[in-house]
Amino acid sequence: MALIVQKYGGTSVGSIERIRAVADRVSVARAKGDDVVVVVSAMSGETNRLLQLGKDLAQRPDGREMDSLVATGEQVSAALLSIALLERGIKAHSLVGAQTRIKTDGVFTKARIQSIDPSPFRAAIAAGSVAVVAGFQGTDAAGNITTLGRGGSDTTGVAVAAALKADVCEIYTDVEGIFTTDPNMCKQARKLPRITFEEMLELASLGAKVLQLRSVEIAMKYGIPIHLRSSFKDTPGTIVGAEDDSFESVVVTGIACDKNEVKVTMRDLPNKPGIVARVFSGLADVNISVDMIIQTESRGDRADLTFTVTQTDLAHTRDVTERVSRDIGAGAVELQDNVAKVSIVGAGMRSHAGVAAKMFRLLADQNINIQCITTSEIRVSCLIDKTLVEQAVRSLHQGFGLG
Amino acid sequence: MALIVQKYGGTSVGSIERIRAVADRVSVARAKGDDVVVVVSAMSGETNRLLQLGKDLAQRPDGREMDSLVATGEQVSAALLSIALLERGIKAHSLVGAQTRIKTDGVFTKARIQSIDPSPFRAAIAAGSVAVVAGFQGTDAAGNITTLGRGGSDTTGVAVAAALKADVCEIYTDVEGIFTTDPNMCKQARKLPRITFEEMLELASLGAKVLQLRSVEIAMKYGIPIHLRSSFKDTPGTIVGAEDDSFESVVVTGIACDKNEVKVTMRDLPNKPGIVARVFSGLADVNISVDMIIQTESRGDRADLTFTVTQTDLAHTRDVTERVSRDIGAGAVELQDNVAKVSIVGAGMRSHAGVAAKMFRLLADQNINIQCITTSEIRVSCLIDKTLVEQAVRSLHQGFGLG
Repeated sequence: MALIVQKYGGTSVGSIERIRAVADRVSVARAKGDDVVVVVSAMSGETNRLLQLGKDLAQRPDGREMDSLVATGEQVSAALLSIALLERGIKAHSLVGAQTRIKTDGVFTKARIQSIDPSPFRAAIAAGSVAVVAGFQGTDAAGNITTLGRGGSDTTGVAVAAALKADVCEIYTDVEGIFTTDPNMCKQARKLPRITFEEMLELASLGAKVLQLRSVEIAMKYGIPIHLRSSFKDTPGTIVGAEDDSFESVVVTGIACDKNEVKVTMRDLPNKPGIVARVFSGLADVNISVDMIIQTESRGDRADLTFTVTQTDLAHTRDVTERVSRDIGAGAVELQDNVAKVSIVGAGMRSHAGVAAKMFRLLADQNINIQCITTSEIRVSCLIDKTLVEQAVRSLHQGFGLG
Repeated sequence: MALIVQKYGGTSVGSIERIRAVADRVSVARAKGDDVVVVVSAMSGETNRLLQLGKDLAQRPDGREMDSLVATGEQVSAALLSIALLERGIKAHSLVGAQTRIKTDGVFTKARIQSIDPSPFRAAIAAGSVAVVAGFQGTDAAGNITTLGRGGSDTTGVAVAAALKADVCEIYTDVEGIFTTDPNMCKQARKLPRITFEEMLELASLGAKVLQLRSVEIAMKYGIPIHLRSSFKDTPGTIVGAEDDSFESVVVTGIACDKNEVKVTMRDLPNKPGIVARVFSGLADVNISVDMIIQTESRGDRADLTFTVTQTDLAHTRDVTERVSRDIGAGAVELQDNVAKVSIVGAGMRSHAGVAAKMFRLLADQNINIQCITTSEIRVSCLIDKTLVEQAVRSLHQGFGLG
């Protein structure tokens, strides 16, 4: 008798047939005697359809209204899965919007969960009912509907699991697990049976679109293992958990890449204190996360500043940087999206020297120019020409012996 | 400076272009200085799409989940119209689900409004913002999402107008107003400039699908005039209001027909007290409204009972009547949907004799057999063969001089 939170992604609930298959899977867990809480995403394509309706009406549609708009996608899935479960004789009910008592801050389209009152879920379990939770959303203190950003249903799943101290959060998706790299780019990619939270965090933040970053942060903080697996097959997937003796100390666990980067270059900034802070606080004010940063070519009293943001923040980034540039009398702002970030990740890097140098050499052997570099304890990332990214991934995968 | 509640139906918000047109119309009212609260239906086709998803999963999907499912249709419209208004520089915000504080009973799929707290709407007006309300829905005491039944957005519109003591509730739809009969059946049909609440009630309950019955009841109770008009044209529609001197005392105002009737015949019921009550309380328990009733052909200790229900209640009606029939040892239950109800309505009928007789004669002249008859003070209805309904409507329209 375990307490399991199961989260099903968009393709897993993408059709009536798929929803039936999910109901079957929930039945199996219930038949084993497990208590189950389910979190669902919108049916695949639905979120994009709704976003497009909003964008058809306004270039930058209001955040509050967009959240209320797209939150309906998960509400539909939750109701449909509840209907499918009830049809199988399994007691179930959906929890949507304010019913979930998932409280967030008021940052529309990118809200963060502040608290989860577990009582609606506990009440469901006590009543022998499967609570089917609309993922990706919550309400702020004023009762407005908020959404957690792309992939936010993963965060809902893990946060609910943490609030309930569940034994595991199973995340069902259209991939079989975490691979050493994107199998579409590199045929030698292998599924990993286990991976540490830290490695997964680096991979999630680097564009391995398998799990949302914050869901892994929450899982790590509360020690909830994630079992990432396919909703189309019954084979085990990848366990994301705490580092322990059962993990081999692999130097490089995986290769990630991210083609959604935009390189922003601000020319001729006055080279004096406070200027860079002004740029980044302007971006932070509108909730834009900046990734790689380099300040280059100080020429007398002027310097250039280069950094990367994600493509979804392109329009707002242009506004902010051009306004700041005018205000401080700087030069042109250039935005380039012909770049991509390729990264190596591995917990074993901490205890092995020369890993970064090997990466640079492998890229140089392919005549790939490195535009920016950033590193963490267990990761090295390089910004390169977007057209060369697959070549880079393949050579790193082979060079680090992941095949 | 008037306070206007505008309600837009499904075809009026059926596409991005139509939503823009609605935003333009709201702008015009705002530019005149009017305070406006808007109530919207789901985009046309959306409610049916959602209902179908539910029905694909279960023959009789759970009511609570169906309500949560279909309520998303109006939530989408409300968010989109708010986005369109904001894009025109008009302050606006959507109110959905619990935000509206429209409280209903707990009868899923057919809930009735119990109370409306006007404060969210008053707050919007005070802030100079157009509240865009998701119609058709509310929440019950336990916080469950409920819906008000087909056409429920009309009820939301009028109920909000009543709660705000608005000057008028404008209901925008795809027809130009109330006609003497269905123009699709009878080319001579004319638009009525005015009609009384009582006449409209009879027409609404008789299947003139223009306004939901309860919306007219509420408008009459609170004395809120309804201006029913086209969202595609700028011409005035039909004012539905209290009877006054400006109304001519027309004997017959309009001809209605309803092809969604099912005739139920229960054979060989024991002819003793309490049997009929048992049938109808069984139907009332599952919220099925019965329309025409006749008890016929008492043969010794047995009698037949005939009544009509709407087609949407067909499955539940079959269950209840077959169960009751078994329990009390009655005969077969027959359900026939090859019937239709044709009705004449007019406030002037109260003071004119012989109107019903004239109706029966007009139908007899066409060789149309009458299966059941019901009457009210201002209405006479006959159940006839469905294939003859257009012929009946045309002959009554001409016979009562409505052309």
